[in-house]
Amino acid sequence: MAQDAQNASLIGKPGSRAALTTPALLIDLDAMERNIAHMAEHCRAHGISLRPHAKTHKSIRIAELQIAAGAAGICAATLGEAEVLAGAGIPGVLITSPVVGDARIARLIALNEKATGLKVVTDNAAVAETLSRAASESGKPLEVFVELDIGTRRTGARTPEAALAVARQVGKSNSLVFAGIHAYAGHLQHIADYAERRAEADRCAQPLAVFTEQLDAEGIRPPIVSGAGTGSHEIDALRGNYSEMQCGSYIFTDVQYNACALRQGAAQPFDTGLFVQVTVISSNGDGQPITDGGLKRFATDGPPPEILRGAPAGSRYIFKGDEHGGIVLPDGMTDLPIGTKIECLTPHCDPTVNLYDHYHIVRGDTLVDIWPVDARGVI
Amino acid sequence: MAQDAQNASLIGKPGSRAALTTPALLIDLDAMERNIAHMAEHCRAHGISLRPHAKTHKSIRIAELQIAAGAAGICAATLGEAEVLAGAGIPGVLITSPVVGDARIARLIALNEKATGLKVVTDNAAVAETLSRAASESGKPLEVFVELDIGTRRTGARTPEAALAVARQVGKSNSLVFAGIHAYAGHLQHIADYAERRAEADRCAQPLAVFTEQLDAEGIRPPIVSGAGTGSHEIDALRGNYSEMQCGSYIFTDVQYNACALRQGAAQPFDTGLFVQVTVISSNGDGQPITDGGLKRFATDGPPPEILRGAPAGSRYIFKGDEHGGIVLPDGMTDLPIGTKIECLTPHCDPTVNLYDHYHIVRGDTLVDIWPVDARGVI
Repeated sequence: MAQDAQNASLIGKPGSRAALTTPALLIDLDAMERNIAHMAEHCRAHGISLRPHAKTHKSIRIAELQIAAGAAGICAATLGEAEVLAGAGIPGVLITSPVVGDARIARLIALNEKATGLKVVTDNAAVAETLSRAASESGKPLEVFVELDIGTRRTGARTPEAALAVARQVGKSNSLVFAGIHAYAGHLQHIADYAERRAEADRCAQPLAVFTEQLDAEGIRPPIVSGAGTGSHEIDALRGNYSEMQCGSYIFTDVQYNACALRQGAAQPFDTGLFVQVTVISSNGDGQPITDGGLKRFATDGPPPEILRGAPAGSRYIFKGDEHGGIVLPDGMTDLPIGTKIECLTPHCDPTVNLYDHYHIVRGDTLVDIWPVDARGVI
Repeated sequence: MAQDAQNASLIGKPGSRAALTTPALLIDLDAMERNIAHMAEHCRAHGISLRPHAKTHKSIRIAELQIAAGAAGICAATLGEAEVLAGAGIPGVLITSPVVGDARIARLIALNEKATGLKVVTDNAAVAETLSRAASESGKPLEVFVELDIGTRRTGARTPEAALAVARQVGKSNSLVFAGIHAYAGHLQHIADYAERRAEADRCAQPLAVFTEQLDAEGIRPPIVSGAGTGSHEIDALRGNYSEMQCGSYIFTDVQYNACALRQGAAQPFDTGLFVQVTVISSNGDGQPITDGGLKRFATDGPPPEILRGAPAGSRYIFKGDEHGGIVLPDGMTDLPIGTKIECLTPHCDPTVNLYDHYHIVRGDTLVDIWPVDARGVI
């Protein structure tokens, strides 16, 4: 039975949060709304545009809330995400990875014909030329960001000079529009210490400044300089090197971001808004009750889930296989009642969300709605 | 666009394996068919019944192939998996985790009324009593396995004495049928060394023997003793402590099982049959081309993906975030062509499969079919 069908009858019933069939992915709607408003205000205050990254949530509904709060558009990690979001009418979708291969480029061009303000990154002159040919056959120009790697060693031309060659290729095309620079420092977002993270962001700003100067020298001002994540949202706003921020995880936060000092000398600006609720299904007297939440219910690329509610203070979560978690109770405690509901702060939020088909939306103790994770698994 | 729709037009075309839109989860059908036949023959040769675990594949089609090869039924990790499989007519589904809570027990009883030979485990007398009441209202008896923990510390009564109390509770009920003992040594399946794994299996066999004797003394012979995994499939067959094996991963194998000596002094009995195919989407001259396969495309609870095809010998795979992988090339190599297809042996196969909606079925270099991962994400 699909998960939404199992819990749909509980919507609107007071106390229904405690009656969910689990494992369930929960959004605290009050917290997420505060987070969306808070980041929108942060960007307005610093005169920077916001194009939040949808790879975190993969949700049309959440993208709509972000747009309603003033976002200029939405980032998508894959063409499939962009198809889902732009297909639902979300404007200004920026695909933050290169799109390569005939089949994918055909889909990209078809999407561009229908979508409002679609944009895509490229880091390669030959790919830019292919995009140019495909766009010229379609008749509608394609907006292209040139990607510069500033330290993550993921996609992106590795030097300003290499990026300039790509920009020149884009500039030569009648069917491509140079939309700006894409430069995302993914590797520094989770550095816990603020000063250390700022120092690395300073290093990353250098090649970006060089590239901007080179473009200036050629008479090409980048219309947009896009980058920044939740971890660097304050640092990059204060420095002003981006005209647009792409933060994603701020809407939920997770174990990793809660461990980062996100603001210098200030409290965390964002509330925890995403949880996985599990149930104790077995308890056998040895201080380690077992839940129904295992490796298939939580991301495992970072720290383990953190128990927030339902187990005594000092309890910790361990994985016990595909479908089971263990609650290691504090010394002297042996059992939890079978049926106990436990809510965990999620490890890395993006790949955790990707494991679920639905969000259970709660306000306080009540399930108020169930939303699909619309773009889960699409490529 | 759904992944099956993107590649469906390639089915049956020679060479189509190289034209897939990626990331794609691939089954080498020849290898999987050999593996299914091989394990079926192994069990027949040792006079042991086989009820393979579907948590590995979550697929109706694969369950049907296993039943056709002689399996007595199928194991399911969750009630949701059981609903999908039994709902498709697969007989003898055994749910290998306790089912607790009113909503879930109502679903279990409803499924039992429709299904042929449904079975469920329990490790708790109070839960057994609740199951008994629910089954008695339905009019169709429910088959129950009593679960004994033999060292994994997951679900299961922790001692033979505690398990005996549960068995007595089951025995008292007119609406429950004592189906046997469930005792799975999950913790030893991945011990790489054969002798070490056998030694641990020997330790696990002791409480199982004690429990069987206790049941005998009470005049209750367990009709079935179910357990064993791919890692212990030979050890447990030679020892004869189970009447039924539950192996799952043997149909595919993965990085972890390939590192285990599965047969004493003999070659690995199973062929690698599951791959993730990714594409190089960016290559920038520094010896680390980037693919479209990241944390959302591979399980991350074990070793990283192992490159099998498409990259030069000595290359290794590293994760570069949600949607990207890096190919670390051997010294002196700088690039791979954009568009290069790379096939990887999967890390832990079960949670890798759980990330995909479809299997791409290949024979040699041809895509021959696309099958759904029917029970992905169900709870």
